Order: sequence, then C-alpha cells, then structure tokens
Amino acid sequence: MIFEETVVLTVPFGEALARTKEAFAAEGFGTLTEIDVQATLADKIGKEMDPYVIVGACNPGLASQALDAEPQIGVLLPCNVVVRQRDGDVVIEAMDPGLMATIVGTESVRPIADEARRLVSNALQRLAEA
Amino acid sequence: MIFEETVVLTVPFGEALARTKEAFAAEGFGTLTEIDVQATLADKIGKEMDPYVIVGACNPGLASQALDAEPQIGVLLPCNVVVRQRDGDVVIEAMDPGLMATIVGTESVRPIADEARRLVSNALQRLAEA
Repeated sequence: MIFEETVVLTVPFGEALARTKEAFAAEGFGTLTEIDVQATLADKIGKEMDPYVIVGACNPGLASQALDAEPQIGVLLPCNVVVRQRDGDVVIEAMDPGLMATIVGTESVRPIADEARRLVSNALQRLAEA
Repeated sequence: MIFEETVVLTVPFGEALARTKEAFAAEGFGTLTEIDVQATLADKIGKEMDPYVIVGACNPGLASQALDAEPQIGVLLPCNVVVRQRDGDVVIEAMDPGLMATIVGTESVRPIADEARRLVSNALQRLAEA
C-alpha cells in the first residue's frame, strides 16, 4: 500500500514540497490536488500538528487507461504523496499504484498499474538523489 | 477496497453530485477536494468521456485520530467517492475505509477505520433512500 521507498530530506518543509512536485512532474505526474492537512485540521477542529501536505499526483495518460479498463478505479485516484515534517526532517511517502491492480482484480489494470509503479519509483529516486 | 454498497441514481448528474455531498456532510464528512475527471482529462490529453467526479470526503475528527495512530495514513486520505455517469444513470461508489486498517497493519487504526466505515455506509444508505 505504502510504497516501500520512503524519502527523507533535511531541508525546509516548503522546499521539500516543491522538490516533491518537481520530481513527480518530471515523471509525467501533475499536481491535481494539494491538501494542507495541518491548516485544514487547525481550521476544522483546532488541532495542532506539524506541517503535513497530501499531494494528489496524476499521470493523465495512465489515469485515462486505468479508467477505460476499470471505471471504478477513481476511488484510488489520484496517487497520493504525503510530505510531512518529522522533527528536523521531511518525510515523503507515496501510495503504491500496484495496489490498484491488487484490489480491483481487473486483469487489464495490471500493466497500467505496473507502469505507474515504475514512474512513482523513478520520482522517489529523483527526489532522493536531488 | 470498493465499498460493497454501490448507489445508482436516475437523476441529472449535477443533482446526483449535490446529493452525494449532502449525504456525506450529514455523516460528518466535508468535501475537501473535488476533481472533475472529465474536464481534467479533456484539458490534458483531449480525452472524451462521460461526466466523472471524484469527491474527497473527510471527517476531520476521524482523520485526526487516524493520523495520530499512524502518520503514514495520509496516503489513503481523504475518502474518495466516485460519482460517474453510466448511460442514463449516475453511479456512486466509495472507497472502503476499512482498507486503511487492513493495509497499514497498525492495530490502533482498526477502531477508527471501523467507525469511518460505519459512517460511509450510513451516507450511502442516506443517498439510496433520499
């Protein structure tokens, strides 16, 4: 479910967030949504927590193929990438797109999920090496 | 993964979308994101498809508890609800929040996921009966 490669960056939070979006963009994933969890929960229930953002990353070509193969797949789109402060570090974790194929059980989704998985891995690799 | 209760409404798409958001709001889930998949894919890759919206529904109290129990859980937040046109009907499908507990394997997430599951079930029931 959670991609096995977690990236830890020791840079300011905003820079880590910008780098994450750049790394995914370089692999064809645009930022479709961006949820500031810290601000949202502070606003809704007065919660105090460290900076935490969920980036909804979407590769339009792969999303399109996945939707054609299995219209229900939207319950797992876009691919969430969590960027969160943990003490002095920023941790970046992505949803494993392989999950899509595992869970819906539609055989034609498998190669699409595999390709998405490869690109997410590339993006995390890019981020770790930047 | 996909909640076993699917709702099918025979009303205009916009009305089905509004009713969906209302039903989830009545169970404490605000609409955190709303992705117009049809418009996004038309814009990005010129795809033609029927109306398809992904609503990101979030219950702040439960999300907060889940994040405290397992910080990685954001890769599965918010709870996606798909609203999609299928011929003359509109189909509504939700992510099964029980998946959160199954996948992260953190024992303390289980009761939170169970409660989210109960509320999603209530919302779908509401929608089916409206």
